This record gives sequence, structure tokens and C-alpha cells, in this order.
Amino acid sequence: MTGLRRYVPILNWGRAYTRQAFANDMIAAVIVTIMLIPQSLAYALLAGLPPEAGIYASIMPILLYAIFGTSRTLAVGPVAVVSLLTASAIGQVADQGTAGYAAAALTLAFLSGGILLLMGVFRLGFLANFLSHPVIAGFITASGILIAVSQLRHILGIPGGGHTLPEMLASLAGNLGQANALTLIIGVSATAFLFWVRKNLKPALLRLGLPPLTADLLSRAGPVAAVAATTLAVWGMSLDERGVAIVGTVPQSLPPLTMPDFAPDLVAALIGPAALISIIGFVESMSVAQTLAAKRRQRIDPDQELIGLGAANLGAAFTGGYPVTGGFARSVVNYDAGAETPAAGAFTAMGLAIAAVALTPLVHDLPNATLAATIIVAVLSLVDLSILQKTWRYSRADFVAVAATILLTLGAGVEIGVAAGVALSVLLHLFKTSRPHVAEVGLVPGTQHFRNIHRHDVETDPAILTLRVDESLYFVNVRFLQDLIQARVTSGCAIRHVVLMFSAVNAVDYSALESLEAIDQRLRDMGVSLHLSEVKGPVMDRLRGTHFLDRLSGRVFLSQYDAWRHLSADGATAGDHGVAGAAGLA
Amino acid sequence: MTGLRRYVPILNWGRAYTRQAFANDMIAAVIVTIMLIPQSLAYALLAGLPPEAGIYASIMPILLYAIFGTSRTLAVGPVAVVSLLTASAIGQVADQGTAGYAAAALTLAFLSGGILLLMGVFRLGFLANFLSHPVIAGFITASGILIAVSQLRHILGIPGGGHTLPEMLASLAGNLGQANALTLIIGVSATAFLFWVRKNLKPALLRLGLPPLTADLLSRAGPVAAVAATTLAVWGMSLDERGVAIVGTVPQSLPPLTMPDFAPDLVAALIGPAALISIIGFVESMSVAQTLAAKRRQRIDPDQELIGLGAANLGAAFTGGYPVTGGFARSVVNYDAGAETPAAGAFTAMGLAIAAVALTPLVHDLPNATLAATIIVAVLSLVDLSILQKTWRYSRADFVAVAATILLTLGAGVEIGVAAGVALSVLLHLFKTSRPHVAEVGLVPGTQHFRNIHRHDVETDPAILTLRVDESLYFVNVRFLQDLIQARVTSGCAIRHVVLMFSAVNAVDYSALESLEAIDQRLRDMGVSLHLSEVKGPVMDRLRGTHFLDRLSGRVFLSQYDAWRHLSADGATAGDHGVAGAAGLA
Repeated sequence: MTGLRRYVPILNWGRAYTRQAFANDMIAAVIVTIMLIPQSLAYALLAGLPPEAGIYASIMPILLYAIFGTSRTLAVGPVAVVSLLTASAIGQVADQGTAGYAAAALTLAFLSGGILLLMGVFRLGFLANFLSHPVIAGFITASGILIAVSQLRHILGIPGGGHTLPEMLASLAGNLGQANALTLIIGVSATAFLFWVRKNLKPALLRLGLPPLTADLLSRAGPVAAVAATTLAVWGMSLDERGVAIVGTVPQSLPPLTMPDFAPDLVAALIGPAALISIIGFVESMSVAQTLAAKRRQRIDPDQELIGLGAANLGAAFTGGYPVTGGFARSVVNYDAGAETPAAGAFTAMGLAIAAVALTPLVHDLPNATLAATIIVAVLSLVDLSILQKTWRYSRADFVAVAATILLTLGAGVEIGVAAGVALSVLLHLFKTSRPHVAEVGLVPGTQHFRNIHRHDVETDPAILTLRVDESLYFVNVRFLQDLIQARVTSGCAIRHVVLMFSAVNAVDYSALESLEAIDQRLRDMGVSLHLSEVKGPVMDRLRGTHFLDRLSGRVFLSQYDAWRHLSADGATAGDHGVAGAAGLA
Repeated sequence: MTGLRRYVPILNWGRAYTRQAFANDMIAAVIVTIMLIPQSLAYALLAGLPPEAGIYASIMPILLYAIFGTSRTLAVGPVAVVSLLTASAIGQVADQGTAGYAAAALTLAFLSGGILLLMGVFRLGFLANFLSHPVIAGFITASGILIAVSQLRHILGIPGGGHTLPEMLASLAGNLGQANALTLIIGVSATAFLFWVRKNLKPALLRLGLPPLTADLLSRAGPVAAVAATTLAVWGMSLDERGVAIVGTVPQSLPPLTMPDFAPDLVAALIGPAALISIIGFVESMSVAQTLAAKRRQRIDPDQELIGLGAANLGAAFTGGYPVTGGFARSVVNYDAGAETPAAGAFTAMGLAIAAVALTPLVHDLPNATLAATIIVAVLSLVDLSILQKTWRYSRADFVAVAATILLTLGAGVEIGVAAGVALSVLLHLFKTSRPHVAEVGLVPGTQHFRNIHRHDVETDPAILTLRVDESLYFVNVRFLQDLIQARVTSGCAIRHVVLMFSAVNAVDYSALESLEAIDQRLRDMGVSLHLSEVKGPVMDRLRGTHFLDRLSGRVFLSQYDAWRHLSADGATAGDHGVAGAAGLA
């Protein structure tokens, strides 16, 4: 691939674009557009922004991702978790509903886009790896709960706020008296309807004999039906005059050209949250993109994805949007509807542009409670507390990381939750590797294999202590090995040779090198020789560059069996007769 | 060992105490006492405390360590690096020379003792492992430079201060005009004399026919000679009246009973530095204790050492001292002089108590410049910049950790230096393991061994991709493996089986489990089966507790050779003929 084509994937798939692919992409685009109109309005509500921001954030970003992204079917735009993070970040620097709030959203999108772009250019995509699966799962689950609870006030028709679960619940409890009955009826029935659609509509349609794909797409149109029905109800009965909050006037316009606010204070306050949004968005998007790509044996380039998402966010910043990423629901619909190339995304953008110009008067009477219902039903599918049970059964360390992430995200906010989860999973990993599994091994009789003396019936020689180290040696675990060898040797007086079997040692850092030197020196002081066996090529290469091998009291054996043959013979004959022989020579 | 005897090691060695051991311990104690008098005064000067604090800090701590510590020969008391850390920590909360300063030193010793004790009781000694050897080496070297530079003002006889190298140099440059010529003469000649003693006296004495041990001990008495000579000079010529700063009146008393200041603000300000002092002190002490113990095939229990050092620091807090730990120089002298049991330490404490009561008038005229000279000569042996060159040759990551620790300790202070070193070495370690070595392997003809296809001439089968993963799988590196497999499989269309050879995979965390599930699912979507081979017992035990093995598209083979035989046979015959056969069946 030439340089330009590496950075602009459209130059690859664009040349081979066929009429058939065009037809497929167009059909997918129509379906996705219909689904995206209510979803975009809803996520803008969640982010605390005016409704049109959600639509604008779905237009230019999709186009830019189509040019720079590597996934054929990923649909980029506002998503639930990023909208929540946006509300949390901007809520700290501006009040919702002010001009400063919308300007800060542009700044956040710009910073997030810049960070993603830089990570892509400098190939720093691996930074996302610091988010372990349990931390992500815990964070997504807790975010889902936070989002659902944050929407209850729209269902109840009361004011409220807060960025943590206790704050939100206190705010709900305090304002409960102001609840609007009509809003509540709309909100509860929309929620119930959407849950029913999600759970029962598709099986019902299948029973009626519809093809699975049609049944699936129709059941995904549930939110559109709820939007239409409740909008008509408000319009027909003028419910907005009886206290039902509605979307109201949305400007009829293409995305405007906007300029983010670059005030140093604002940038300083938003750079941290922007980095978090970038990484979380990237992880979410990659997981969707790779799942879909694998189904068609296509490849996703993580560094190029960073560039694609970066461009999309910069696009959002200059066209009245807010931070975006590849969304799960919209991408799956796009894929299922038959999208073949990123052109489907471009057609979706056109569809949304037409909607922004022509259809916004239609949503004037749409109740916020309906939008809140679509959000609640969508995000509750993100909530999966079974991760607690799964990690508990698999590994306590992973369980602790999940539980802490969930509790802190709910109790102290999204940023602290993720930061604590990352820090904790790193510390727990280091702790686990700080006490490596070290097995004392002996020869399986009649073979050349060595196995744990506590699990197998093996031959040993009291003059030879053989330890198989099941971990790379590095600063966190070397002292453990040092203590273990010293304890073992001081308790067995016949020991004259210690053999470290390095078959599972993939690396030896400088601390470990010095520790091996110290172990050798201390064993020498006790009249014991240190040997190594089965050292891997890359480890041996490094050791050869030092004086360690020259000074080593013993030898490096290619195989453990060589070591055994040589050192047993040194004492006397191998096996149980070795003791007397060794003592005789010592 | 019963519970009490585990926590009070004196109950073990005390029962078997012999007359011979008593004689040996007594001789060692006399030699160590003589060496410790000037050293204690000097380190108190370095810590910014009155001279007697250094002596008091050597009495009760030694006694308590003799009861609770596990090393037979470790000598506990003030040491250079801990004195520097003390000065840095207390300098932030009180002015040198005030009563608050000395009280804060007691609080620091109390907090440090408490932290060590808690770490011992809860067996948290492994926390010290987070200090890698390069970070410790860099920190000790930078501390040596800082200490030496901090003493130049006593050699010059000028006021000054600062806790970083630039601050100290600026302070020296600003006050250079006030230098006292007589002080300078004393300081420079004492320094030159001590360097000469250190370098040339022992060889000279050996040439005169003295036994090596005697020569060694005499050459270590150099500081005592310098102290005596310069004190006599000041006394004889009344140099103190001509501007030479002297130790002055030191109270003639046993260590007083003192109470640390527990003001909440002070405790809050000192708890961080106290934790740092505890860990650095523990690491330094353990390294000395283990080196000496190994020479006599004795054992050090790290958790009990924490209790011993904790008791020693609590002792210092209540008897007018400041934070202490096991010192290298004093312990080596104790060992070389023939100390057999911790009783030698107790006798040293008695010797120092006698000195504190009877001998303090003798040091009234001792010039501070001489003490500064002993410190400079002692700490310059800590400075070892060769660590930069050694780590550069061995591993760039370790080099970066050393260089950053040295630069930040010198430029930004001891606390930031250590913290940055620890954080950096953890991040570099994670980064190294984030891109594990993965080798594509094939069968060495005529054997059952598999080797890297790029290094060896091996048999392969285009339908089988075998990857040997040389690292434990955990959240930081799983996405790398996922991307690598996806890239490799999408570029080789004949591949029908992927075998992951797990011989060097020591652990699989929950993130890696989920990634393996995702890899399996994605390969299945491409019509490829995933197999594992040579999975270790502990990893297999964990996988058996999940649904992973039930759902796996392929199989788990005991050995890679089994996998090869089975999967090649599945296609057709093994080796180069496999292609056609596999294609025929696919």
C-alpha cells in the first residue's frame, strides 16, 4: 500500500465500487437514517445539548469516517456512554442550556479528535489496552445504570441533575412532588411499549411468517412508532399546554459551521475528560468494528481507526456537534441491512441532512419523555451484572477490579470510576506476578521429562535442587525468588547444586539480572553452585551481553535432562544412590 | 516455631548463647562503637538535627532490633540516605534549629515505625518490590550527589540550604563570598586525608605485614583520627573564636524520654514522606542483611525484619532520635569484627550510652567541617554512575528508568525522583509485555520439536497456522494477539486451523479469556478452527471452570506434536502435500 492509500482507505474500496454495492448501501442507508433520527435527538438530550446537536453530530462525522476509517460497516455518531461522559465533563465548566455549554461541547469534540489523531499518527493505540475487559464491562454497566436513572426525571417531568447515583437519587427524591401526571403516563407507556417491542415483537412477526431480516428491522423501528404515536398525541390534545415537556422548535438547517472555544482555562479543564472520552470511545468502536469485520474476513487497522475517529470528532467540532464514536446498535443495523462499503455511511449522512432541513418541524411536539424512554430501553441492555459473577468464579483479582469500577463509577462519577479501575487492575496484575509459581521438579523415571515433585512420582537427588520458574523475572518478583531459594537452601544441607529451569522465563530485566548475580554470589558463599537450563533464545542473547555468564558458579545447560545427567554423574550415579556418592565427594 | 518465638527471635538465639559468642560480640561492639561516635554526629548534622540526636538514634533502636530483628549482624541506626530524606521531609514543615523541627523528627520516626510494623504484621513486605534495582541504584547515586553537595557549605563555612541540586548550587554561589578560610583549610585537609585513608592506608598497612583484618579495621578508624586531630587543632588554637563552626555543647545524658507531636496537620504532612522513608530504609536494610546472612548460610525473614525495623523506629521516636534503618558500613564492620549474635548490637548500644554520658564534652570543639568531610567521603562511595552505562547496554527500558530517577531526584527532589522512577518502571514493564513475542513455528523434520519458521528449516502446512505465544496473556497484551491473529489469518486464505502453543503462557486473566473467546468466534466466522496445545496445569484448571472449552471450535492438545499429527492427517498427509489435500476437502 502506498503512503497516501494507507492513510486514506477510501482510495482502496472506492475504485472497485459497483452498481450492486451502490444499491445495497442505499437500502441500508434508508433504514439506518430512520432509526437514527429519534436516537440522535435522544442522545443530545442525554448530553444536555439542544436536539439538533445530535443530528449534526451524525452528519459530517459519518462522512469523514467514510473517507479515513477502515471498517466497511461501522456507523459513527453520538452514542450513549460518550453522551454521558460529555454531560459529566461539560457540566463541570458550564451550566446546561447556556451558550457556553454548547461551545464547550465543541471544544471537547475538538480535543478528543486531536487526541485520537495524534494517537493514530504516533501509533499509540496500545494505550487503550490498559482498560481491561472487566474494567470496561464494569464501567459500561455502571454507566448504563447512571444513564437510565438520569432519564427518570424526564419520565416524571421534574427538574433535576447530578453526576453520581446518590446525587441523582437525592435530586429525584427532592423534586418528586412536582411530577406531571400526563408526562408520567406518556413516559411509562412508551417505556413499556419499547420493552415489549424489544422482547416480543420479533418472535411475533416471525410467527406471522415474515422473513427473519424483515422481522428484525421492523422490531428495531419500535422507537420510530413510539415517537410518532406520542407526538401525535401531544399535537392532537395540546398536551404541551398541560405541562408535558416537548422538543420544541428545532432549526431547519444543514449543520452550521462552528468554531470551538479555545480559551486556555477551558482547554485545561477539558483535556483530561477528552482523553478519557477518546480512549473509551476508541475501545467501544474497535470492539464493534472488529466483530463485524471478522464476519466478512476483513481487517481493521487500529492505528488507522484512530485517525478515522479523530477526523470524525474534528468534523463534529466544526459543524455544531459533540464527541462521537462508532456505535454498537447503529453499526449492527447497518451491517444487517446489507451495507457493503462506507458509502452507506455517506448516504446515511445525506439522509440525515435532508431530515435536518425538511423534517425537524415534525418533531416539534415530540415529548422528551418518549426520548427518555428510548434511552432507558437502549441502555438497560448495556447493564450486565453477570460480569460480577463470572469474574468471581474465574479470578478474584478480576472481580475486585469490576466491583471497584462499578461502585466508584456509580458513587463517585465516571472519571474516578475508570481511573480507579485502571489503577487497580494494573496493581492487581503486578501483585499476581509478584509471587510467581515456582515448582520443585524431578525426573519422571524412564523419560527425559521433569515434573513437580509434589504432583508426580519422580526421581530426585538430595544434592541437586531443581526449580522451574513459571514467570518472566522482573523487578516486582525477583526478591520473591531470592527469598525462596535462600529459604530452601538453608533448610537442606545436602544441596550442592541449584538448577533454575528457565523454560517459561520469557524475559529477564536488569533487576532480575542483578538478583541472579546476588543469588549466585550467596549460593557460592554457602558452597552451592547455580546452574540454568532451557534458557530461551532472546533471554540468552541478553545474558550473553553481560558478565553474568562468565562469573556464574555453575553452567548453562541446553536441556534439563543434560543438567541432571551431568550433575548427578558429578556426585556419583544418578538417582537415589546419589546421596552417599555426593557426600563422599563433598 | 511457636507464635511468640516467631515474633521475638531473641528467644531462639538467646537460649544457646555461649561464652565464646559473648567474647566475640564484645570485641565487635567496641570497634563499632568507636566508629559510630563520629558517624552519628555527622548524620545528625546532615538531617539538620542537634548532634546528640544522632547518638540517641543509635541506642534504643539497636536494642529493640536485637530483640525483634532476624539478622544476626545488622547494625541499626542513622544512615546517610534516610538522614537526607528526613531533612527533606521536615524542612517542609519546620525551620531547622527550632523545637518544632526536632519534634517533627520524632513524629516522622513514629510514623515510619508504625508503617513498618503494620507492613510486617500484614505481611506487606512485597510492596518494597515495586522499587526496581535501577530505580534504587539511580536514587542512591543521586542522593549521594545531593548529600555531598549539601555538605559543601560546612566545608566552606557558609550558610545555605535547598533540597534540589539547582537550589543548593544557587545557595552556595550566593553565599560564596562569606567563606571562612580556616574552616576551608580544615574541611579540605580532612576530606583529602579521609580519601587517602580510604584508598591507600589499607594497602600500606598490609605491606607493613599487618594481618588483613587488622589493616581493614585500622583503615576504617580514619574518621576517628581526623576527628581527634581537628578537634585538638580547634581547641589548641581557639579557632572557634576565629569563625570555625564547631559542634559545641552536647548534653551529657542518657537518651531522654520524648513524646512525638501528634498534631493532625503535622501527621498529614509527614505520612507520605514517612512511607517513603520506611520503604527505602527497608530495602537498604534487607539488602545488607541478606548479603551478610548468606555468608553464614543464615536466613532473613522479610516480614519479621519489618517488625524489627518498626520497633527500632518507634524506639527512636520515644528517645530523642529520628528515623533509622540497617546501615551498610556499620553492619559490615560489625560482621568483619566478628559479631556472632544481636547481643553485639546490645553491647554497642551500651558503649554509645556510656559515650553519651561521659564523652560528649570531648567533641565540644569538633569542627562541623570535619563531620562534613566524613559524610562526603562516605557518600561518594554510593555514587555509581556506571549503572547508566550498564543498563544502557542491557535494556533501554531499564536505562530510561535510571536516567529519569537520577535527573528528577537531583532536579526536583528525592520524593518526586523516587515516585517518578517507580511509576516509570511499572509503565515500561507493562509496555514491554504489551507486545509479546509470538513465533510462528513448524516441525523440525525427523523430531517432535517445533521451532520458529524464520530461524529454522522446518516443515509447515499451509492449512495450519501454529503460533507460540511467549508471554502470559493479560489485559495489556490480549488485543495485540487478537490483531496479530486477525492480520495473519486474513492474509493467508488456505488457513483452516490456528493452533496457539501455550507452553510459555503462565497465566490467562479474565480479559484474555474473553479475548480468546472473541478470537475463536471471529475465526469461526471465517471458517477457521482454533486449537490450543501444551496448556499448563494451572491455566487449564482455570479454563475448565468456564464454558470456553465447551464452545471452542477446535481442541486442546497435550503436545504440539499431537496437534500437528491430528490436524495434518485431517487435511491429507503431513507436510508439503497437505495443501492439495486440504483444498480438496475444504
